[in-house]
Amino acid sequence: MQHSSKYIEAAVEQMASLPGIGRKTALRLVLSLVKRDESKVQRFANSFIDLKQHIHFCHTCYNLSDQELCSICTDEGRDAAVICVVEDIRDVMAIESTQQYKGRYHELGGRISPMDGIGPSELKLDALKERVLSDEGITELILALSATMEGDTTNFYISRILEGRGIKLSTIARGVGVGTELEYADEITLGRSILDRTPFEVSLGRS
Amino acid sequence: MQHSSKYIEAAVEQMASLPGIGRKTALRLVLSLVKRDESKVQRFANSFIDLKQHIHFCHTCYNLSDQELCSICTDEGRDAAVICVVEDIRDVMAIESTQQYKGRYHELGGRISPMDGIGPSELKLDALKERVLSDEGITELILALSATMEGDTTNFYISRILEGRGIKLSTIARGVGVGTELEYADEITLGRSILDRTPFEVSLGRS
Repeated sequence: MQHSSKYIEAAVEQMASLPGIGRKTALRLVLSLVKRDESKVQRFANSFIDLKQHIHFCHTCYNLSDQELCSICTDEGRDAAVICVVEDIRDVMAIESTQQYKGRYHELGGRISPMDGIGPSELKLDALKERVLSDEGITELILALSATMEGDTTNFYISRILEGRGIKLSTIARGVGVGTELEYADEITLGRSILDRTPFEVSLGRS
Repeated sequence: MQHSSKYIEAAVEQMASLPGIGRKTALRLVLSLVKRDESKVQRFANSFIDLKQHIHFCHTCYNLSDQELCSICTDEGRDAAVICVVEDIRDVMAIESTQQYKGRYHELGGRISPMDGIGPSELKLDALKERVLSDEGITELILALSATMEGDTTNFYISRILEGRGIKLSTIARGVGVGTELEYADEITLGRSILDRTPFEVSLGRS
């Protein structure tokens, strides 16, 4: 498609550089910006520059934060002995929104995926080992990575580098979703939910 | 969802202000920006500010342009007697990409839609009338608006304001798409394609 303006062309190209945004969608989004007041477009654009200039990765858990340490790592009310290992900030936000977890986090920044050229050194795995060996007092790691080949590989790698350190490792429970009809659950999940069945008393106590 | 940073919150809010972008998608897009170098984020953001500062609506046809008059209106090689009336720049781009049209355009900026509070005065209809009455030498208008209630209303309004001016009005042909199987065409389109059938010789000459 041919554009009548090099400024539209440039803006569309930038918008289409975002993941999952094609050129047609990009044009639609750019045209919606053209219709706005200049001050609103300034605010739109500056929000991304401000973000990039002020955002830090927390020095401890690599969560995104306005400060050097994130609000979860500095919260004295949270259990420092339990660390939930996740891929990125979206997982932290999803877990936080459940309000069921009072420990801290460690963000790896992804998972081991040789196909995408992501090895252990691209992730915050050494930093995780350092944390566990430090005087933070960590006793348990909850591995909350995706249930995929890459997630499993990463879990295995973590279990190896922490072998013999007396750290309790667990993964989040996999099973049929609460409120899901059995007939709509996929076979692998349903099979796993039978293998990993929980004693009835426990389920009763929770509900 | 709770964000650990007010800068992320602000950026997500701005991203989610774009049409069709929800907060989850906005967060994904914003996180992809966080991963980029600062210079790239600057270039991303500045492309929208530059666009807004430099873009004009062509004084004649209201197409978006870097100059006061767009490249189509200033192209002496195009037929000034024929004007294609469209809703917005995306229609111009779609028609231009066919390379079948050598006339000029007039962008209304939408179509009459009382439900959305868009009346004739919100559109460039007066400007269209002025152009037709001016010494531009316009003899034909091709109405290329959507085949919807609003498009038909707008077509009817245009036919009324130009009544008795000796201007030839036409609409683009509606019918079964080239390469479409008849059985998959919708009834209304197929019905119209029979009512608006074209002589066989003409079809032969074109193919």
